[in-house]
Parts: sequence; C-alpha cells; structure tokens
Amino acid sequence: MAKKFTSEHTVLYYEGDVTNHVTIAMLLNMLILNSEEQNINLGIDHHTLAEQGVGWVVTSYDIQINKLPKVDQTIKITTSGTYRNKMFAYREFWVRDSQDNLLVKVNSIWVLINEETRKVTRLPEEIVAPYESEVVKKMPKLPRPNKILTEQANSKKYQVRYSDIDFNGHVNNSKYLDWMIDGLSMEFLLKNQPSKIAIRFENEVKYGQLVTSEVEINDNVTNHEILSNGNLSASATIEWKNN
Amino acid sequence: MAKKFTSEHTVLYYEGDVTNHVTIAMLLNMLILNSEEQNINLGIDHHTLAEQGVGWVVTSYDIQINKLPKVDQTIKITTSGTYRNKMFAYREFWVRDSQDNLLVKVNSIWVLINEETRKVTRLPEEIVAPYESEVVKKMPKLPRPNKILTEQANSKKYQVRYSDIDFNGHVNNSKYLDWMIDGLSMEFLLKNQPSKIAIRFENEVKYGQLVTSEVEINDNVTNHEILSNGNLSASATIEWKNN
Repeated sequence: MAKKFTSEHTVLYYEGDVTNHVTIAMLLNMLILNSEEQNINLGIDHHTLAEQGVGWVVTSYDIQINKLPKVDQTIKITTSGTYRNKMFAYREFWVRDSQDNLLVKVNSIWVLINEETRKVTRLPEEIVAPYESEVVKKMPKLPRPNKILTEQANSKKYQVRYSDIDFNGHVNNSKYLDWMIDGLSMEFLLKNQPSKIAIRFENEVKYGQLVTSEVEINDNVTNHEILSNGNLSASATIEWKNN
Repeated sequence: MAKKFTSEHTVLYYEGDVTNHVTIAMLLNMLILNSEEQNINLGIDHHTLAEQGVGWVVTSYDIQINKLPKVDQTIKITTSGTYRNKMFAYREFWVRDSQDNLLVKVNSIWVLINEETRKVTRLPEEIVAPYESEVVKKMPKLPRPNKILTEQANSKKYQVRYSDIDFNGHVNNSKYLDWMIDGLSMEFLLKNQPSKIAIRFENEVKYGQLVTSEVEINDNVTNHEILSNGNLSASATIEWKNN
C-alpha cells in the first residue's frame, strides 16, 4: 500500500469566489501544496529534485466534486502516490471536511521532466521508491476531455501576466482553470457548480504569450480549450449541477 | 491606546511570485484577513456589518518594505485601529518575522460604506468603539501617489475576470496591484524589489469592465494609474531598490 500523507488547510477569503466557495484554481494549488508536503516529509522536495535537474509536472486531473469547500472551512487533504510505471506516477487526493465526509476526490497523472530540456524522463528508482507505490504495467487511464467540435465556441483572449508565472518560470497550472472558467458568464457561474472535471495539460505557456480560451456549452457540460501559438495548451470538460 | 491584534501566517508557494517572494497583491490580502480576524475577535465581523447594510473599504495604503516576506516564511501580522474621526479610520499593520524583525509597516485609511448606495457613511459609535482608537480632529495624511504627467506612459488593457471579483461582487483591491505590476517588464521585476508603495483607490471597477493600466518609469520610481470608462480607478507610486 502506498504511503498516505494528510495536511489541513483553512480556506481563506482570498481563495474563494463571489459565491464564497473555493475556486478550482485555488483547490488545485492546495493539492499541489499537499503533495509537496508529502515530498518534504519523505526528504525529496522540489529543491532536492532541482539539484538533480528534474521536477514533477501534472499532465491530467480527474476531479469528482461532491461538495465544494467553502471559505473559512477547514479541510483535510490526504494524498498517496498510488501507482507507478516506468514513465508515469498516479497520485490520488481525498479532500474531507472535519467530520470526514468526502468533499472532493481527485486522480492525477504526473511525469518527471528534465528542467533544462522540459522533456519527460524515466522515473529513477531512488526518487519514487519512498512513496511505496504499486508498480503496474498498465496505468489506469483518466477520462479525456471532449474535443470542441462546433465552430460556434465562445472565445476570449488573455495575455499571460507576471502574476500568472510561478517560481519555475512557467504559467502555474491553476491559471488555466481561471481562463477556462472566465469563458463562462457570471449568470451561469452563479447558478451552477462543477461536479466533475477532466483536465489535460498539453503544452506549457510562457510569460508574454497570448492565449485563447475557447468554450462550448452543451446544457450542463462545458468543453474548454486553451490555445497558444496555434497549439493546444490545455483542455477540460466540466460537468455542472444547479446550486 | 488602541487594541492590538496579532495573527500568524506561513506564506504558501501560490502566494509567491517567480522570485519566491510574496506578491504585493497577496500581502494586501493577508492584511485584510488579519484586520477581519480582529473584527471577528471584537464581535463585529463583515457579516455583522452586512446585516446593518454597511462594510469597510480601504481608500489608501502607505507601505514601507524593509524586507519582503518569502515563500515558506512564517510571519506575524499585528494591527491596530489607531485613530479615527467622524468619517475615517486609520489602521496600522506591522509584519514581523519569527525573530520580531519588522519586515513591513503599513498605514491605511478606511471608510465605512453603505452596501446599497456604495456611498461613504459616518462611523457609528457602536461599530468603532471596540477598537479603542484615539479620536482625532485631524487625521494623519498618507503620501499621495504621483500623477502620470508624460504622454509616453506604457499602457496595457485588461478585461475584468470572474476570478478578479470577490464575495462582495466588486474587484478585489489586491487585483489592481497585479495590473499595476504587470505593466513593468519581467527584466525590471527580476532586478528590483519594492521598498515603498503609496496606493489610492478612487472608483470601484465592476465585472466585465475593461481597464487600462498605465505606467511611467523614472529611474527607481514607477507611477501607476488604473483607468476604467475614462475614470481614474486607482493610482500608485512605487519606489524600488536593486535586489
């Protein structure tokens, strides 16, 4: 059984949106923080990895939301590096309230990249062994976001801002979610809450680039694509339920 | 002597920028959180005020930075509602490290607004008495930001995003700082750190509006103006020192 690690966090008002629920972008930040705390706990944090010229990158998330955490709520986040093979690591997250009710379940796929070339490398035994993941031949697949098929998708343009860039010099993954969700109207966002999200990150976006956020709405399902320089940077499918 | 209130916070990686220092926007969020914690402690938090149809709004900040807090650093924020008169409250903040070194000192002016009309109201005794502020005839003035005089100011446009709006339905004050600082080049921001900031908020910006961020650079001083619908929404003057 893979090792588990739990940390607590109280959702701060500036991590919430106009409805007083945590934003999806901030929720992703909290997951990354929780996983990094496990890394620190096991003695292989991102500083240690950087010395070896590598770093973890998420390629996709599968997020099931029973109840979105609210501002001022204290949540417990548990993670485990459940599976791995030669190239991929499969990490689970459970977000629970103080009564241990499961609020959010997340599955995610990670790769290790060479910080210089930004290319994927094999997972070295000494880096992944401490997580005690189950070594598998076939990695469970995460649901893929739908492609946007119609040409009537709504489209908005964003210039990558200084505040979108994090310590590794690239756009923080959580920012894609802000661009995706901003493609929907305030009216829609006040009426609906996400219940299921599939996200895939394809190509990194850099400072100063212009990105296009496209969104297609089919009833309670929205499909999102972030494009930069004509390339697909990220895509997502979000299922919504009425508040 | 006005009552003091202290809270602790560890700067999270997603509250930092590419240099691993807290962003000014996030620092302002932390101050607001600290002041709201004092409000809760005194039994007059923003929910209680909302029931009376009013809410606190910052009109200006005077920020002196000795050392900008870093990611993973635990800071102590102390606040006091030092002075007040009929219309204005003067609130101080001290941000210290764990050895009690003063990292940042902030003076700020606040008003109480009617949530419906968004107009300033007089400060009712029952709302302000618990802070034990010194009642003054003449409120100490904060330094005013410089006006932008040249026509060669750089200018960038931003559409107000869903994620820029907070629970009160208006652009969160901290977002103006992101727009201001994004007007400077990455090269400038990697070489320099703010040492002194004067900010004034003039007119609120709403969801969907287009804002223009203008910046004028004079050696180590930058002047910033945020304009919306031809009105000045906020202005700031920032002094910088080399890293």
